Amino acid sequence: MLIVQKYGGTSVGSIERIKAVAERVARTKRDGNDVVVVVSAMAGETDKLISYAREISPSPPDREMDLLLSSGERISAALTAIALNELGVKAVSFTGRQVGIITDKAHTKARIERITAERVEEALRKGFIPVIAGFQGITETSEVTTLGRGGSDLTAVAVSAALGADLCEIYTDVEGVFTTDPTIVPEARKLEKISYEEMLELASLGAKVLQTRSVEFAMKYSVPLVVRSSFSDKPGTLVVKEDRDMEKVVVSGVAYDKNQSKITILSVPDRPGIAARLFKSIADENIVVDMIVQNVSSDGKATDISFTVPKPDLQKAVGIVEEIVKELGAKGLSVDDGIAKVSIIGVGMKTHSGVAARMFETLASHGINIMMISTSEIKISCVIESKYTELAVRALHDAFGLSAQG
Amino acid sequence: MLIVQKYGGTSVGSIERIKAVAERVARTKRDGNDVVVVVSAMAGETDKLISYAREISPSPPDREMDLLLSSGERISAALTAIALNELGVKAVSFTGRQVGIITDKAHTKARIERITAERVEEALRKGFIPVIAGFQGITETSEVTTLGRGGSDLTAVAVSAALGADLCEIYTDVEGVFTTDPTIVPEARKLEKISYEEMLELASLGAKVLQTRSVEFAMKYSVPLVVRSSFSDKPGTLVVKEDRDMEKVVVSGVAYDKNQSKITILSVPDRPGIAARLFKSIADENIVVDMIVQNVSSDGKATDISFTVPKPDLQKAVGIVEEIVKELGAKGLSVDDGIAKVSIIGVGMKTHSGVAARMFETLASHGINIMMISTSEIKISCVIESKYTELAVRALHDAFGLSAQG
Repeated sequence: MLIVQKYGGTSVGSIERIKAVAERVARTKRDGNDVVVVVSAMAGETDKLISYAREISPSPPDREMDLLLSSGERISAALTAIALNELGVKAVSFTGRQVGIITDKAHTKARIERITAERVEEALRKGFIPVIAGFQGITETSEVTTLGRGGSDLTAVAVSAALGADLCEIYTDVEGVFTTDPTIVPEARKLEKISYEEMLELASLGAKVLQTRSVEFAMKYSVPLVVRSSFSDKPGTLVVKEDRDMEKVVVSGVAYDKNQSKITILSVPDRPGIAARLFKSIADENIVVDMIVQNVSSDGKATDISFTVPKPDLQKAVGIVEEIVKELGAKGLSVDDGIAKVSIIGVGMKTHSGVAARMFETLASHGINIMMISTSEIKISCVIESKYTELAVRALHDAFGLSAQG
Repeated sequence: MLIVQKYGGTSVGSIERIKAVAERVARTKRDGNDVVVVVSAMAGETDKLISYAREISPSPPDREMDLLLSSGERISAALTAIALNELGVKAVSFTGRQVGIITDKAHTKARIERITAERVEEALRKGFIPVIAGFQGITETSEVTTLGRGGSDLTAVAVSAALGADLCEIYTDVEGVFTTDPTIVPEARKLEKISYEEMLELASLGAKVLQTRSVEFAMKYSVPLVVRSSFSDKPGTLVVKEDRDMEKVVVSGVAYDKNQSKITILSVPDRPGIAARLFKSIADENIVVDMIVQNVSSDGKATDISFTVPKPDLQKAVGIVEEIVKELGAKGLSVDDGIAKVSIIGVGMKTHSGVAARMFETLASHGINIMMISTSEIKISCVIESKYTELAVRALHDAFGLSAQG
């Protein structure tokens, strides 16, 4: 098999950990596999560099940040290659440029446009283990770019796709994907298998095991992923295409997100184009709106619009909305930052009815009021008062039988 | 003027220092100059990375070391560019690759083959200050290389030559080149001006203000250098072509080197090819022999050969010499590692007679025995007992009138 193994920051967080990673890679190679390694920066390294930059400037140029931050992964790639050679395993490190990871010009959040990977293939043919510095690429004009937080996951998935790897293993400090946050629900179970779609919903809800874009990329190119711990030999969670087995399970996981705030615009005149005007202004400021609910008023002439934005963007969003309230002649706006979003996710929802009803009943039976609802094919999210978050997560985890063996 | 400014590790050793460097660069720009900046890694950073590698492996592959060590300069280049932008001065960082510093394949001690510097010239044309990561280059096949200890000096000089800069300023933590080590002779004087040849002798004698190869490069391409402190506004020492003024001064400086050991082979049969055989074997092990003295024996049939090698290479050298002693049928060998070399340097020696005699008299008058002598056009070196080093340096500094205004 050709296996791409990606090791996150805590997995290469010290010299001892880097040696342990090398042992694992060497073992995988000895078992008869071809291995490609992708590494993140040593834990804390990227944050240290960011704090250096912020000490100098509140808004350092993105291009310079990319050159700065790409250094961390180069260091861990070189050290990992040194550790492999020390074990007698031929290994050679590659930067994003040497791998031929070509991105667009969006510094600090570049998108991969293509990967040549010629040197990686050549190294594999010669029996070397390529060790790739994650998180980074290069533009057509030879500028260094980075792929945004968690970008090393994306490097690993994209390299897997380019090489046609049989498996992409994402090594992290948790043992896999859980039915919910084990710090809230101790009975939370590790999932053996989950679909790309479910993983995507979980990732976008803030479950930090995988970066959203890397899941999208894996889904698009059908790269089988495994999320597992570099601190143990347990098998982890397989992220693959949806299959019939998965549909038998109605709900795979319960997620929550406390990082949103709600803005409501009161009595907006109900004319076409109003919502477009509002959300375009917000999008222009790069604020990502998550949920939107519009309640048509009883006389059909005015409407209330509520939506959620990430907490750090609240002040900026309010500023924009205040302008629009004036412009549209709405009655005013209200802000609520004591909210949380709880969600249930599962591909089985598509074929099972009554899932939403059971969710609402469960919350109601615990006296939890639902403020907003949004649904997708495989997810139902409810906005509730923040203080009920843990109670709601435990109740839903229980109600959908997630603690029992699935 | 087009000025290349190189800042060493202590000059960019902290965020505060980097800000101070940016202030100085901005000031030079405001004074109407075009400025190109070359930076070393922050002080301690390179040593930290080396210790990481050594923790993993006693002999890490050179190629991997180069990727590892080149990171330090990238970080300080990005941070310096950020600091300049924060001051409202347009600046852009470049890696060795982006500058087009093409080297041979000798990892960890690569030699520069050529510099394209197109992007640097373009940045200058657009009014930007290019900030270049020192110490690094790239091979024709796109491998990252480093230029050896002090390699950022070489980057600065080579970039100066490529751009036809009017001046290359080397900023360090000392105020310039001194007549001798001020810790031994408090009256040591900073030189206003020194020739490339003298600087070269001083550098090769271990005066650490400039890397030897960068002086050779500056001499070859007639790049005017200034060595000065980034911690003060004092003018520093100008390193330029020899001129008539310089010849008036007999001796410009006194240097010493305690890092050598002496090996003597006793009664070697006096046949052609013996010395060649001996020194080829030593050179094959990459040991640099400094001084060689051969005393022909009185009967003309045997000879004693003495030579000095760097202290860290002594054991290895002795091993080689023992073999050769057997092979040649010499009487044996003796080792002396309690030696030091003191040297006087000056282009004026060429036109002044009696300099060597005065040196020997001075040492003799202090009861210092001379064990070996070697001379060049602008340098006389004597090997003496190590315990007399400070006494000899002070006496010579005095005898050649270096404490007085030159």
